[in-house]
Amino acid sequence: MVRGPQGRPRSRWVSFIEWFNKVIMDAEVYDYRYPVKGAYIWRPYGVAIRRNVEALIRRLHDETGHQEVLFPVFIPYEFFSKESEHIRGFESEVFWVSKGTGGEERLVLRPTSETAMMPMFKLWIRDHTDLPLRVYQIVSVFRAETKMTHPMIRLREISMFKEAHTAHADRDDAERQVKEAVGIYRRIMDELCIPYLISRRPDWDKFAGAVYTIAFDTIMPDGRTMQIGTVHYLGENFSRVFDVKYLGKDGQMHYIHTTSYGISERIIASMIAVNGDDRGLLLPPRYAPIQVVVIPIMYGEDQSVLNYAKGVSGELLNAGVRVHVDDRRDKTPGWKYYHWELKGVPIRLEVGPSDVKDNAVTLTRRDTFEKYAVERSNVVDAVRELMKAIEDNMRKSTWEWLRSHVRRSSNVSEAKALLNEGGVVEVPWSGDDECGRRIMELTESDALGIPLDTDETPSDLRDAACSEKKAEYWLRLSRRY
Amino acid sequence: MVRGPQGRPRSRWVSFIEWFNKVIMDAEVYDYRYPVKGAYIWRPYGVAIRRNVEALIRRLHDETGHQEVLFPVFIPYEFFSKESEHIRGFESEVFWVSKGTGGEERLVLRPTSETAMMPMFKLWIRDHTDLPLRVYQIVSVFRAETKMTHPMIRLREISMFKEAHTAHADRDDAERQVKEAVGIYRRIMDELCIPYLISRRPDWDKFAGAVYTIAFDTIMPDGRTMQIGTVHYLGENFSRVFDVKYLGKDGQMHYIHTTSYGISERIIASMIAVNGDDRGLLLPPRYAPIQVVVIPIMYGEDQSVLNYAKGVSGELLNAGVRVHVDDRRDKTPGWKYYHWELKGVPIRLEVGPSDVKDNAVTLTRRDTFEKYAVERSNVVDAVRELMKAIEDNMRKSTWEWLRSHVRRSSNVSEAKALLNEGGVVEVPWSGDDECGRRIMELTESDALGIPLDTDETPSDLRDAACSEKKAEYWLRLSRRY
Repeated sequence: MVRGPQGRPRSRWVSFIEWFNKVIMDAEVYDYRYPVKGAYIWRPYGVAIRRNVEALIRRLHDETGHQEVLFPVFIPYEFFSKESEHIRGFESEVFWVSKGTGGEERLVLRPTSETAMMPMFKLWIRDHTDLPLRVYQIVSVFRAETKMTHPMIRLREISMFKEAHTAHADRDDAERQVKEAVGIYRRIMDELCIPYLISRRPDWDKFAGAVYTIAFDTIMPDGRTMQIGTVHYLGENFSRVFDVKYLGKDGQMHYIHTTSYGISERIIASMIAVNGDDRGLLLPPRYAPIQVVVIPIMYGEDQSVLNYAKGVSGELLNAGVRVHVDDRRDKTPGWKYYHWELKGVPIRLEVGPSDVKDNAVTLTRRDTFEKYAVERSNVVDAVRELMKAIEDNMRKSTWEWLRSHVRRSSNVSEAKALLNEGGVVEVPWSGDDECGRRIMELTESDALGIPLDTDETPSDLRDAACSEKKAEYWLRLSRRY
Repeated sequence: MVRGPQGRPRSRWVSFIEWFNKVIMDAEVYDYRYPVKGAYIWRPYGVAIRRNVEALIRRLHDETGHQEVLFPVFIPYEFFSKESEHIRGFESEVFWVSKGTGGEERLVLRPTSETAMMPMFKLWIRDHTDLPLRVYQIVSVFRAETKMTHPMIRLREISMFKEAHTAHADRDDAERQVKEAVGIYRRIMDELCIPYLISRRPDWDKFAGAVYTIAFDTIMPDGRTMQIGTVHYLGENFSRVFDVKYLGKDGQMHYIHTTSYGISERIIASMIAVNGDDRGLLLPPRYAPIQVVVIPIMYGEDQSVLNYAKGVSGELLNAGVRVHVDDRRDKTPGWKYYHWELKGVPIRLEVGPSDVKDNAVTLTRRDTFEKYAVERSNVVDAVRELMKAIEDNMRKSTWEWLRSHVRRSSNVSEAKALLNEGGVVEVPWSGDDECGRRIMELTESDALGIPLDTDETPSDLRDAACSEKKAEYWLRLSRRY
């Protein structure tokens, strides 16, 4: 039997991606029947989840001095192509825009906005008092993926791209920002109960135009990893080609140093993927559109159970809990249990005639399905405690699962065998690009890079592919989405 | 001297549009120096305004049973071209998308989403219990305008398009929805202190694919009108070509009736345009990102004024007022007054040494510049009352101005002379399309349509262009943005 991160049964899965596609469709989060490859629809329940996640993203960026902006989706090719590495990395996957009439300026749909921001940074930044400048936006970006697309995971229209772009006086301040960005992303993932690995990507896999790239990856239930966030130090690569300088305290003109960092709806995809089970979604209580679903067990025309249920839900609502009473008469309680479990509502609150008599309610948690009989007078506190307990359990179990799927091996054939089982394998690496590529080849895997979430380095080991070289780092390997 | 809707001086205006462009740039709401025609940038202060306005839009739609969705920006040409009137109306102004490689499906960037929604409505709607279906989204839409573009007013990327799309069992229910939509838009405009005229557009100017179109227009300070919202009854025009039917209570299959209605950042543009003055913006207090700016008048290193100011602002913050303390030492109070007036903050709260001594503060309202000495213990109530008074005054004065710019005339040469002065002129009309077009020609104006905000009809008058015909309606004329 397949078991997911929660240790709960996933016996009905044929494959992870099949489960994922089915669950986001059945729970009415997403609809991928739209007739364009890689462009899909967020349904109302999905938008409700997004709103909560976007509010989190905004809060954490606003609190740390970022300012929200909104740039056009069009980038003139002239600007898009200025930075040579950037254009080399993106050119094959941009969408072009034209009018029927032709003869217009050549425009691309942004795949990312560095080259849209830079001409404006040039206008906005004059001297050191304008720095640091930190802006972000949550927008659609476009990539003409030639690989197979996956709903919410590999898209041609990425519709929840949060991209931050910052400008700094020097490398030190820019790298301080890189660290802060990593901290913000840690908090976002933690809030959403997504476990992660933080790695410095190998040079051959860094962002096109970056000096270096730091990436967040999580492990999907099928053992493949998914990149869920990246932070780039761009140095002067963009400021030099766009000629963006500021007047320093020293009276001299200097190029700005820039960074950029992005996350997308992949954080919602991974939140769903790592926390779900056979019955459907499990949403982190603080981000669930509905935190408590109240199900009155009604018999005949008697209103007492319904009235009682509404009283309880009113109390929860007043306490700031997002509660929904499912009082449909044409659905059975069993149907409703199934329905709201599928949608990942963290707590079910049942009220039957005996609860009314006993002045009580029954709570069922979505993660473990444990039931609790709770006195009515205690319902708000009990719900709050249970939400906390569910969240803690989600975080703990997903982290345990992730950790148990990161293993080490110092030889490539063993590493390859472990990779066949899924998860991440760390192998000793000299740091040499050629050797790194050979490791990937021999293990038939991708390199995620060097761990940044631990200070450990291999002691007294040889590079897994180049035995003549001493290993300086662990190199993380996986099969990737 | 030119006077705006507030009756306050606008002497420095060379032209309305020049004032508008300058004020949105200087107040750092918007930046139109982006190097693509008709595609501009919302700066952080502008995004803050948008957030409040978008929250209003969402609230009013959510409260009335609309559900938020998010559709792709790409529409396959095959779908886009299905409805013949629709494609005829939009074809000349769509943007096409291609990959470098070619050979792909033909895609357009949505100019509006009827043809994206319909294939999904077909999947989502099975029987009468699925109706009415009401969805909306706030997204970018694209129109390859050939006319001159204007920042925030005439765009190629409209970045705050709220489009609602609804499906109904029959014409009655769809027209009930049309009325509800008009009601929602009234409330939005009222909240934002934008006065409006509601007209049924002449048939020759209805939405491409609609049975009829109801439009909201406001009058800009230069006397030209601007369309700020439209509501369309689409009948079975789209459901027939997309073959969207439902199983009725009668056991038969029926075509759905659809409506759509949209507003855009033009509501922010008009909120700014009708309420601003020589000194800059004036934002409706409940939608201003900063409602009260606190300016401590500091002398030397003494901290008492600043501490007092922070105490007052803390109190306002606790009372839910959005307050900002401008404690910069390198700017004079005069500079700060100018700066925050430009940004349209409704209330300025000054604190000087004498205020500290008297346990008082001084409030200045942005609309009339009247000053009030207020006891510190009363500051929260005073601010609340003043916000209400400012809002009431904004609404009252802009409505008075609008009403004074709607005039009537029963002959075309007088009407033309009045139109030259600006505003709206209503002339008697038979309802005949040919006569209507001739009226437009003779008065060198556009027809906004038939008033829906009054039941009055011309009594015993002849059509202004076709004197042989009896007038049945007033026809609203204007020069339009």
